[in-house]
Amino acid sequence: MIPRDDLTRTGASDRFAPEKAPCAQGSRANGFSRLDTLFHPRSVAVVGASSGIRKWGYLILCNILAGGYTGAVYPINPKETNICGLPCFRSLRDVPGTVDLVLITTPANTAPDVLKECTEKGVGGVVLISSGFSETDDRGKQIERDIVDLCQEHELPLVGPNTMGIISTHSDLYATGAHARPRKGSIAFVSQSGNLGVQLMHWATGQGIGISLFIGSGNEGFLNSTDFLEYLESDPATRTIIMYLEGIEDGRRFVQVARRVSREKPIIALNGGRTDSGKMAAASHTGSMAGSTRVFNAACRQAGVLLARKPSELLDLSMGFSSLPLTPGNRVGIVSLGGGWGVVTCDACREAGLEIPPLPEHIVKKIDRHLPPFWSRANPIDLVGTLDMQAPIVAVEELVKWDGIDAVICLGIIGRKKLAQLQMDSTRKMNPEVTGRMLDDVMEAISDYEAKYAEHLLRLMEAYHKPIVGVSLAPTGEGSQFQLEGCDYSGVFFPTPESAVNVLAQMARRRQYLNRFEEKPARS
Amino acid sequence: MIPRDDLTRTGASDRFAPEKAPCAQGSRANGFSRLDTLFHPRSVAVVGASSGIRKWGYLILCNILAGGYTGAVYPINPKETNICGLPCFRSLRDVPGTVDLVLITTPANTAPDVLKECTEKGVGGVVLISSGFSETDDRGKQIERDIVDLCQEHELPLVGPNTMGIISTHSDLYATGAHARPRKGSIAFVSQSGNLGVQLMHWATGQGIGISLFIGSGNEGFLNSTDFLEYLESDPATRTIIMYLEGIEDGRRFVQVARRVSREKPIIALNGGRTDSGKMAAASHTGSMAGSTRVFNAACRQAGVLLARKPSELLDLSMGFSSLPLTPGNRVGIVSLGGGWGVVTCDACREAGLEIPPLPEHIVKKIDRHLPPFWSRANPIDLVGTLDMQAPIVAVEELVKWDGIDAVICLGIIGRKKLAQLQMDSTRKMNPEVTGRMLDDVMEAISDYEAKYAEHLLRLMEAYHKPIVGVSLAPTGEGSQFQLEGCDYSGVFFPTPESAVNVLAQMARRRQYLNRFEEKPARS
Repeated sequence: MIPRDDLTRTGASDRFAPEKAPCAQGSRANGFSRLDTLFHPRSVAVVGASSGIRKWGYLILCNILAGGYTGAVYPINPKETNICGLPCFRSLRDVPGTVDLVLITTPANTAPDVLKECTEKGVGGVVLISSGFSETDDRGKQIERDIVDLCQEHELPLVGPNTMGIISTHSDLYATGAHARPRKGSIAFVSQSGNLGVQLMHWATGQGIGISLFIGSGNEGFLNSTDFLEYLESDPATRTIIMYLEGIEDGRRFVQVARRVSREKPIIALNGGRTDSGKMAAASHTGSMAGSTRVFNAACRQAGVLLARKPSELLDLSMGFSSLPLTPGNRVGIVSLGGGWGVVTCDACREAGLEIPPLPEHIVKKIDRHLPPFWSRANPIDLVGTLDMQAPIVAVEELVKWDGIDAVICLGIIGRKKLAQLQMDSTRKMNPEVTGRMLDDVMEAISDYEAKYAEHLLRLMEAYHKPIVGVSLAPTGEGSQFQLEGCDYSGVFFPTPESAVNVLAQMARRRQYLNRFEEKPARS
Repeated sequence: MIPRDDLTRTGASDRFAPEKAPCAQGSRANGFSRLDTLFHPRSVAVVGASSGIRKWGYLILCNILAGGYTGAVYPINPKETNICGLPCFRSLRDVPGTVDLVLITTPANTAPDVLKECTEKGVGGVVLISSGFSETDDRGKQIERDIVDLCQEHELPLVGPNTMGIISTHSDLYATGAHARPRKGSIAFVSQSGNLGVQLMHWATGQGIGISLFIGSGNEGFLNSTDFLEYLESDPATRTIIMYLEGIEDGRRFVQVARRVSREKPIIALNGGRTDSGKMAAASHTGSMAGSTRVFNAACRQAGVLLARKPSELLDLSMGFSSLPLTPGNRVGIVSLGGGWGVVTCDACREAGLEIPPLPEHIVKKIDRHLPPFWSRANPIDLVGTLDMQAPIVAVEELVKWDGIDAVICLGIIGRKKLAQLQMDSTRKMNPEVTGRMLDDVMEAISDYEAKYAEHLLRLMEAYHKPIVGVSLAPTGEGSQFQLEGCDYSGVFFPTPESAVNVLAQMARRRQYLNRFEEKPARS
């Protein structure tokens, strides 16, 4: 459990101006101090728990258990006696002791009664998974209004309805229908779309990207993206925030909160519904009315929110921002194992507004010792496929040390072992004279080198606080991050140069934004 | 071996106007009929073959053998007697009988003598792997001029120097230093960068993308990208051509050839050196002088060459173009498993100039039978996570059949099994009441469904000749293509919506280009 003492400071009620129900201001604001119980509960009940393995009431319960949640878990269903080895309760009332979090999967028309039980039981928070509310018809809209009134009256924090669920890795709570299990980390993701959220959580798992919280915000009947943003502001486990947004109910409040939060933690947002057709699709999806894209984009820029253009960028950027030091500026040095890749990366940098400064003589001289006389003698530094093990290390180090460079991109040193493995496989097949032992030794040496190289990049980042972004020659199958005990930063190795460039370009943008406040003190 | 009888028609000498040596015209042109021997040799010699497992002379030889080449293979090295179980020859002269292809890995200064031996031996073609030529210093430039003169004089086709090698899958010839083994297919890739080529071949292997030829064109001392393009025009195994270009020696000839070729086969090019810094990097890399990007882009558009912006696009586009029917227009229907993804895809389509037409009433009615009453009733068709197995099939079929739609994007039906697998794993762990057999049955049913769904998409493409592009919910680990015996097309399932959108946008561009010629007969 993470200490949350500092959370109270986010509750100032004058920040909120919800459009639909002015009377809700006080109660919603007061609810925030309880969000911590919602995301870090000591006990969880699943109302609608089921033994039917394709039902939401089963998938959520089973995921919580298989995910290793260590608190108490209570399945609630009057028709079952035992699910996944746990005794089943007829209703919330029958559960002995307190219940911090209730997940509801029963049909929409049962929600008001279940929520009444929640208030009677004094639960800390509710995630209303079920659909059939304002995203469907007038009847659904009415039920949603009723339950929102109930939550406001009883100050009961509610996520949803119509949500994929939540993940809180630091509490080992995986409470989503999809069973993706991203590892513990510092990236929080608030998503107004469940299926987009699921895919990103699955990608994050595959790439070893560490998540603090995933919140499928669903219809945002009660708690909305801005509320979650405000919670994340003080969440000590969260250092980077990504958001998928289709509509913001109260744009003014969002910008106000985002402006404050973004000075401490990067916020990266993907705005769904940027185009005419996209807006219409968003309206039919969550019932939200996306406003003018131009206005939204301008407001985000003002508030220091970085805008992604596509889902995959959300992960690239969050990985970059959560792992690397923020670039001090936009001057990039490039080290490449071969020429073409350097050219392509140069083009991408320039087109993204980054500079590629020429190399000063003292760096050229240092590198001269390690490369053949015909090397590029320029930025990008083309290692011309050298086998000199020191060359890549010297090249990166000289660039990072030089005050004419703010960030470095390294192409193709990491991932060579995958290609080497293929060469070894061929040798094993065709060349009986080379023993398996010899091949294992070679592979070990290559692996060792890559690990040492990655470690060296990390040490350089620690020493100079400039980002060094790697691009692997081939996927290593070990994820895209490299971590080392005691280091503030992690190594990042993207599969494509464009991802590395995009991270640095957005970092440079953020740096420029933050510089404004350093030049003149921010107004409160 | 592929019949090459029709190749002679590409040899018209008036098409060439090389700048450096007008006298070379005739000989280079005549040489093309011999390129087929180069790419489909019955015998191969490796000059510089070595038993040192990190040497190029070993890596190339071992790759050829391990790759399953069935022709005769001759290692040449006066200092060795036996490499990989093959007897070693002192020189080319000592090899009994003919040698079709010679790969050279010995130092630059030995190249003139080796090439003389090649001409004496009457070999069909040479791939000069070695570096140390015009990309290095004046001496290297002089050697390169000398060997080019020699090749011209003797009409000896030469690839390189300074190249990663070639791959000719249909002849089981994998003659590159890197041991990527893309499967047989219809995409040819000409790359002026070796390391970029290697990475793309490795990605292609991982994604199951079928390649006909890979040509690392290196310094292009003798044969250049335009020559290869002309060869590929008549290569029956090649249906799609991708190119990485840093400089074109004779832009006028390239445009002339490309315009002719692109009417039959799509050409997708990535232009390295689009920016000031990129140009400088390219100049130091291959010594090539990239011209004005604006002029190049305009010329490409005129010639029907599609321009990619980054390496990964080359693969996406080549996979799309080689697998799917060309879209008849730019009107896209979208079927999505969930809302957010549909919104994001809508935005991407509109921003790429594609239309998202509203659904006509008759399609809404057909789909009404399979989805709950609150479904979107619009394009994108949001399947709202339905478990109705017929819904996705009906939705796609209705869209494809309708003449108001030219192409369909399907989001998230394929790849569900990966997420289902995670759910089954949880159940196996937590729920002893469910037997392993039951879980296996569920997984088999899901797998079967996905296979049948993919097959259905293929049948629809065969029937209506409109592209149906899939986006998988999660990587299936089975590559991105789905093939079926007897089908002209393949199913394509990209990991991201933006790849699918990009393919359709470029297809629509190509369709528009081709339409010009259909409206008025092309001038010869």
